[in-house]
Amino acid sequence: MTHDLDHTHDAGLRSWVPGADDHPDFPIQNLPLGIVSPDGGVPRAGVAIGRHILDLPALLATNLLSGEAAAAVEAVGETLNPLLALGAGPRRALRRDLSALLREGQAERRTIEPLLHEAAACRLHLPAAIGDYTDFYVGIHHAENIGRQFRPDNPLLPNYKHVPIGYHGRASSIRPSGAPVRRPSGQTKGPDADTIHFGPSQRLDYELELGVWVGPGNALGEPIAIGEAEAHIAGYCLLNDWSARDIQSWEYQPLGPFLSKNFVTTISPWIVTPEALLPFRIPQPPRPQGDPKPLAYLTDEADQRGGAFDLRLDVFLLTPGLREAGLPPHRVAVSNTRSMYWTAAQMLAHHASGGCNLRPGDLLGTGTISGPERDACGSLIEATLGGREPLQLASGEERRFLEDGDEVLLQAHGVREGFASIGFGECRGVIVGASG
Amino acid sequence: MTHDLDHTHDAGLRSWVPGADDHPDFPIQNLPLGIVSPDGGVPRAGVAIGRHILDLPALLATNLLSGEAAAAVEAVGETLNPLLALGAGPRRALRRDLSALLREGQAERRTIEPLLHEAAACRLHLPAAIGDYTDFYVGIHHAENIGRQFRPDNPLLPNYKHVPIGYHGRASSIRPSGAPVRRPSGQTKGPDADTIHFGPSQRLDYELELGVWVGPGNALGEPIAIGEAEAHIAGYCLLNDWSARDIQSWEYQPLGPFLSKNFVTTISPWIVTPEALLPFRIPQPPRPQGDPKPLAYLTDEADQRGGAFDLRLDVFLLTPGLREAGLPPHRVAVSNTRSMYWTAAQMLAHHASGGCNLRPGDLLGTGTISGPERDACGSLIEATLGGREPLQLASGEERRFLEDGDEVLLQAHGVREGFASIGFGECRGVIVGASG
Repeated sequence: MTHDLDHTHDAGLRSWVPGADDHPDFPIQNLPLGIVSPDGGVPRAGVAIGRHILDLPALLATNLLSGEAAAAVEAVGETLNPLLALGAGPRRALRRDLSALLREGQAERRTIEPLLHEAAACRLHLPAAIGDYTDFYVGIHHAENIGRQFRPDNPLLPNYKHVPIGYHGRASSIRPSGAPVRRPSGQTKGPDADTIHFGPSQRLDYELELGVWVGPGNALGEPIAIGEAEAHIAGYCLLNDWSARDIQSWEYQPLGPFLSKNFVTTISPWIVTPEALLPFRIPQPPRPQGDPKPLAYLTDEADQRGGAFDLRLDVFLLTPGLREAGLPPHRVAVSNTRSMYWTAAQMLAHHASGGCNLRPGDLLGTGTISGPERDACGSLIEATLGGREPLQLASGEERRFLEDGDEVLLQAHGVREGFASIGFGECRGVIVGASG
Repeated sequence: MTHDLDHTHDAGLRSWVPGADDHPDFPIQNLPLGIVSPDGGVPRAGVAIGRHILDLPALLATNLLSGEAAAAVEAVGETLNPLLALGAGPRRALRRDLSALLREGQAERRTIEPLLHEAAACRLHLPAAIGDYTDFYVGIHHAENIGRQFRPDNPLLPNYKHVPIGYHGRASSIRPSGAPVRRPSGQTKGPDADTIHFGPSQRLDYELELGVWVGPGNALGEPIAIGEAEAHIAGYCLLNDWSARDIQSWEYQPLGPFLSKNFVTTISPWIVTPEALLPFRIPQPPRPQGDPKPLAYLTDEADQRGGAFDLRLDVFLLTPGLREAGLPPHRVAVSNTRSMYWTAAQMLAHHASGGCNLRPGDLLGTGTISGPERDACGSLIEATLGGREPLQLASGEERRFLEDGDEVLLQAHGVREGFASIGFGECRGVIVGASG
């Protein structure tokens, strides 16, 4: 890490914005960036603070932002891509200014207060126009769990511990939290069925992932060295890689998943910055005895020392039965980003290692992050062993896979003694029935 | 087909533009659309006619275009996306007007002539901003040939004749003809080697494909019926899916090709319209005895009657040795789009069948189109049987895979008795050495 903790991370820091200090996701130590339409207005940049969103173009007009921070906001239009392209300097300057302006005792409070919108009255958009979306497979427990079901003899393929496996996903169908998730129809073939069938997926699933936003990026043909990779990461989000398992198992050979994954992908709409996540950096967990060392192009001393994250990940399921009975969402899993076999920097350096160009606003998914335990599984196909052992819900319902009306909510939180806890905000979606 | 041959297809039609009637690609019966910078100027829309390019914004300013045709050109900025979004009506109106304006005997010739640029003095750009790029695998002889090398026991997987297999590719690294092709470095593992190596690919290859430009497209969650699919195809191009075979064989399981394909993809920069290709439409070749019938969502009577193409495809290789000896490029293969197992309409309808949204300017590749014979192979890995039987060139050189300095040129032509022959223009790229 080339950047250190500073006063913006102080646990004792308090904000004058009502409710911000007790907010589970967005205290003053977080300050994530997004694109919002307040009360149906034109999309513009905003920063989340408690239950409010500070209007950044309006703040810019007050002249309270300093040079580099002002330049960062000036660059932005209806997407954050131009800000992501600027890299760490302007982003950090903006964080420092915002932290000072929203802090308790700030003399300009009366000027800034009218620029706050109630988050509940805002529409949240995708924060950036996503040029290309790539999904990785770095959750090793997930790779083992799902590999066992698709390839019982060969759960973890020989390349897994050498190559940060990834593949291209669909950018057009990425939607912000809250967008409906229409059940896809597709071709399926039962393991014993001779006839091929086209119809609504019967094995609809979610996948718990982290998203990584690309910053400046590289020119075609010019790889990014592992030591430079962090400088090209502009932030993080939650990502639900909704998956139709029955379509997937029939279509995925030899070129990988396609229609089983591209019907919609949901992300949390706030870009949580690398600065906000600094307190939750940890060394790369040691590789199990006997695992190969990563090749040189994936090895960096700073990345080994602090390139991983300790973030708690939660998956909740709210079914029509739970909703009707007034019961709370069922917590399906608690996982942690410690289970990533490769760091975000390794994913990014690998992606560019053959010369592929990454552009500001490109999105990388980590792949499903499961822990080794049954209650740490980031997808239903793992948690129910392929549907053989359904979840039992307090409503008396069972779930092997998702049914229409089911809602899935992903959460991520950084929690560390001596620091304020922060969260990523919501990543949720409700399943709606297949189209006619 | 909902559109019929008209006078713009007449073989006897001649143009007043010098050399157009004898041009192998761009006689007046073709009129493909592109984005060009004449003499380093701002990118703008143009139409190819012989060795010239007609400047469309300049033509618009003359008021010689009629209502719908004028609207089509008015929509365009520095990309053709807005024109593609308009669908067939304005595109056909533009073709009719252009055909009339460029025809021998046209009274306005003196007005139009100054709006022609020498193509040799123009820079050709990508014709559209490509939101998402998807590559299919519909060349059945290629699938068999390459399947035999990667999976000797299982060349054609059980899904192949049911599912138009496709996967997501990388949009950011698509370049127009002429852009250099930098040899990628990547992880490789020899079949007998225990050590994994990172370095320049030793098995660099090309793939001969057709590209399909998406027109209006669909909203997320709203599939496109097979009978409507043609209305969403705005045109065609050539596509070279450069492939690093050694990287591919090590990385591709279980999620498909990634870095082995995303270092660059070359396309011919002209959008050849469905109208121009009408004379070369043919019925879908009958499926071999015993092959399954496509499912209903992939079956359309008009598509069966005329959804395939008879286009001759050529691959040429020009090596440093041939160049130095003053020898012509080596013709590696002659293939034909008749070898597509699925039509473009079937690819598109399948793509949207689960609800995935296609946007104007998205690009679909067909996958490599090989014929059954050795001299009809659309890639070197097929033509040389995985490098075991190298090509012998007139310069005395051998080629198992591509070497630095090699140039690959793809061509496509429609040739039919009673019609003018048309071509797609150039799709070429020269291999340059791996980066430091």
